[in-house]
This record gives sequence, structure tokens and C-alpha cells, in this order.
Amino acid sequence: MPTAKFVPSDPAFETRVRASFARQKLMHLFGATIERVAPGAVDIRIAMRDDLTQQHGFLHAGVVTSIVDSACGYAALSLMPPEAAVLSVEFKVNLLAPGRGERFVARGRVLKPGRTLHVCFGEVFAVAGDGAEERLIATMMATMMAVRDRPDVAD
Amino acid sequence: MPTAKFVPSDPAFETRVRASFARQKLMHLFGATIERVAPGAVDIRIAMRDDLTQQHGFLHAGVVTSIVDSACGYAALSLMPPEAAVLSVEFKVNLLAPGRGERFVARGRVLKPGRTLHVCFGEVFAVAGDGAEERLIATMMATMMAVRDRPDVAD
Amino acid sequence: MPTAKFVPSDPAFETRVRASFARQKLMHLFGATIERVAPGAVDIRIAMRDDLTQQHGFLHAGVVTSIVDSACGYAALSLMPPEAAVLSVEFKVNLLAPGRGERFVARGRVLKPGRTLHVCFGEVFAVAGDGAEERLIATMMATMMAVRDRPDVAD
Amino acid sequence: MPTAKFVPSDPAFETRVRASFARQKLMHLFGATIERVAPGAVDIRIAMRDDLTQQHGFLHAGVVTSIVDSACGYAALSLMPPEAAVLSVEFKVNLLAPGRGERFVARGRVLKPGRTLHVCFGEVFAVAGDGAEERLIATMMATMMAVRDRPDVAD
Repeated sequence: MPTAKFVPSDPAFETRVRASFARQKLMHLFGATIERVAPGAVDIRIAMRDDLTQQHGFLHAGVVTSIVDSACGYAALSLMPPEAAVLSVEFKVNLLAPGRGERFVARGRVLKPGRTLHVCFGEVFAVAGDGAEERLIATMMATMMAVRDRPDVAD
Repeated sequence: MPTAKFVPSDPAFETRVRASFARQKLMHLFGATIERVAPGAVDIRIAMRDDLTQQHGFLHAGVVTSIVDSACGYAALSLMPPEAAVLSVEFKVNLLAPGRGERFVARGRVLKPGRTLHVCFGEVFAVAGDGAEERLIATMMATMMAVRDRPDVAD
Repeated sequence: MPTAKFVPSDPAFETRVRASFARQKLMHLFGATIERVAPGAVDIRIAMRDDLTQQHGFLHAGVVTSIVDSACGYAALSLMPPEAAVLSVEFKVNLLAPGRGERFVARGRVLKPGRTLHVCFGEVFAVAGDGAEERLIATMMATMMAVRDRPDVAD
Repeated sequence: MPTAKFVPSDPAFETRVRASFARQKLMHLFGATIERVAPGAVDIRIAMRDDLTQQHGFLHAGVVTSIVDSACGYAALSLMPPEAAVLSVEFKVNLLAPGRGERFVARGRVLKPGRTLHVCFGEVFAVAGDGAEERLIATMMATMMAVRDRPDVAD
């Protein structure tokens, strides 16, 4: 996991990220919560639930993607100026192990910030009951875009 | 959209795909339905719903991914022998336009079948009210794996 | 292969694309030539050569990528205004079959143009001796960026 | 950069990787050399050369991809049993900065080994004259396949 130090351009980045996350209704539907919000780094947690599974009873790859996409997008937003909103341009997900576990945490990190595009790296871990052990189940490489001057898009 | 002709190795492929889809509880949660099931080709539909949105009110990229991942996975399964199950290995999604619309259809197609790996191409379209117009909002390139002899995985 | 119709914003797009290609010294090294240049569509050809191979004697995946990256990049550039230059942001390549053949053609197509980002789809085919038969060996999904006001980058 | 510890299944892995690399004629053409070979980790170096450039004089994205694909592929091969050969299934490259520099190093690392598929992460750095400073210019996420029982493919 990359560990760069970034200086946010918006001092109120955490409030802004948390407020935007609260408007993501899909995260409510999934019971996902936002945990850590640091400059260029956001963690999102989710508990396993029967209605989030695929045919073998594992967490659906679409849910894995949803939480790590949101984590990467908000990691990018945390470094953007107040007037910019964030949109996902593209991402690649590698599913390394079946989504088996009680809880999952998605960690999104900015690898390379830019004026328009932010390249992010994300990981999803299955977490055992006591939280002591984490098992990597998926990775994401994502391109996030800072969108300005679009009235339909404001974070 | 590629349009190859494939001969399924399992004559009961449609029943099998539909039965497996019925076990994907995430698709129930989303209100997604499986439409066309042909050899190497599966379509999945979903209606826009407020609880599937991201912060700007568009369909969340994770929902877009979920339906096209399932469409691609089942397109691959439709060509697999009865004893194989399907798992997503990896995919890349490009988000071409915001997820704005009343309904969406994800089309998964096998581009190149193999003994172990199937390469699939998927597209997601936003559909206007009367179904007359479709607008491409996302593409997927995916690698799907035929899994054998794993007791925890059976489609 | 997508077949959209695009109107180029630069009437001299073909001259510009061919002149820029002529400056790609790697293409000279590979003996690659640019064939078709149409709005949003560029084809690049290469002949098999012993010094372009990997350890099994197939065309190296890096050469496959090089020609389809250039084809996609120039397909994007063909739609850009005269003041913009093109840079590859990211791409994904799926290698569908070994790079075995006498000649290869890479076809780059713009799937979705934008002001800043162009999403492109590319295919690489192995071509048999008489040119009658083409076999798909690789696909690319790529994001290309229009770069303006950068003195170090001009196509 | 991930830093897992792996135990190679072939004690002669280093000899095998170096011998296979020596057969990659494209690497000779590029003047690339293999440096570090450790279990699940391979580094490949290249010096900037005029004939490896794209139209702006930067290292061509195809060359960047070639060296990091070889680095990831050999990182995977280093963990495979003697009877297996390696083929690239797919990869995604993010180009984070222009390929400007005197030398470049590609580092390929296995993120998750498997019986058939190895997921690898790669990075390419531009290296300044004295080797003291490295600048990340590209990342790769790749799926590599262990191929057995194919007479045309042996590493």
C-alpha cells in the first residue's frame, strides 16, 4: 500500500468527504460506513450480509468494487479544491480471493495526484471476527477526475 | 459489440444460467432481472432507483459494475461444461457517461472462450422511457475462470 | 469493433497524424507503418521479425501493446483540435492468443470522444500470408488525453 | 510496492529466469538487462535511447510496458515449478508521468501466487544520473498464467 504524504488544498476536506459519502445512497443500502479520512487516504467498512452475495455465497464482486471505488474516489476528493467534484473515469479490479468473511474494509489511496486526473490504488481486505487478521481479497487501480463547472455534479 | 457464434457444451445452459442468477442475492436487492440468455451472450436489466445512487444522483459505478460483471460471468458460464463453476478473475470498467436514466441494460459477451479462462466484453446502456433509445454509459473487459473440483464453488 | 462516425475538428487531421507517427522512432525501430487514417480510426501494421520476440518465439506482448497504443493514440489525435497533443493515460491489454504470424495489424478506434479524455478500443490481429485471414490476438481499452499549453508536448 | 516472502518451488529459479530472459530477443533489441531475481521479484533496467521514443521524445509507452511486462512475467515464473512456462494473460498500465530520464528500472512483484494464475504488481521508475533519485512513471497490474503440457511453450 503506497504511503505518500499529501497536503490537502481544502482544509475542510474531511467534513466535505464525509458529507458527500453521506449522500451516497448505495452505501446506506449496503450498510457501509466511512472510517479513516486522511489526505489522499479513505477507508470504508462493510459487514457481510446475505443480500450482498453472489451465487456461491461470497460477497459479490460488484459490492467489493462499490466500496473500493468509493474509497478511491473519496481519497481523490480529499485532495481536490473546494470547487471540484469527483467522478470515476475507469478502474481495474483484480479479485484475488473469494469474498468470504464477517467484515470487509476497502482502503483507497492516491498514488499520483494531478490537476485533472488522480490515479488511485485500492485494496479490499476480509477481516476476521476479532479484527486481528486481514486477508487481501481484491485490488483496484483507478483514474478519478476532478470535474469543474458542471452544475449537475457537485460534491 | 462482438457477435461470435458459439456452440454451448452444456445443452441445458439456459436453465443453469437462470438458476444460478436466481441465487445471486445482490441482484434481488437491486431488482435486476436476467433477460436474454444465449450461448456466450447474457443481458441483465435494472430500473433506476434512488437507493442505488452515488452523491450526484447518478447510478453508482459499483451498481453499473455489478450488473455487467454478472452479465459477463453468465455469458462465460453459458459456454462452460456442467461440472464447471464461474468466478471473476479481473475486470476493467470505463465509465463513459454519468449513470442517468430510467432503466439500464448490461450486455455481456464472450470474446474468446478457453478451457480455463474466458475473455468477455460488456457494455452498459441507459435506456430511455420507451426503450427506443440506448446510450452507452460503460464498457467492461473481463477475465472469467472456469473452476472445477472446488466443493465451495458450484453454479 | 465499434464503427461510429466522427467529424474531425481539424480538417488536416490525416497529415498531422502521419507527421506525428513519422516522429515515433520506436515505430521505425519496429518497422511499423501507418495504414488507414480516418476520423477516430487508425491502423498500424508490422511484419514479424525475430528481434521482436519473447522467449517462446512469439511477438512480445510489449510490441503488441506498442502498436495498438500508437493506433489508439492516433485515433484519438485524429479528432483533437490542432492545438492539442495526445498522451496515453492508461490502457488494459488482454492477450487472447500467442503472437504467432507473419504480419500483424493493430486497429485503434475512438469509442467515446471528450474534451479532455478520449476512450479508445483497439484490436490486434495476426494476418496470414495472403492477407485473407485475420486472427484476433489482443484487445486494448485505453484512455487518451488531449494535452494543451505544455511546451514539451506538441504533436 | 508489496513485499511478501515467497518460497520458490524450483530451487534453480534464478538460473531458469535468467536463461529465459536471455531468449527474449526484444530485450536485446532494447538493450534491457535483468538485475535482481528473487522469489516473486524481478527488476529489469534499460537506458534511454533515441530509437525507443514516441513523438515528443519520451520513452514510448510500449517500451515502458515491455520491460514491466517482462519483469512481472519473470517474477511469476520465479515461483512456478520447473515444468511450467509463463504467458501474460492481461495487464493494465497507468502512465503517471512522461518517460523522461537517462535510465529506467521496472520492478515486477508477485502479489498473489496461484496454481494457474499469478497476480503481479509492477512499477517503472525513471532514474537520475547518479542513481540516487527515482521517480515513479508507470504502474502495472497483471495476470500471469502457468502453462503446462504445451509443446510450443517452454521457458
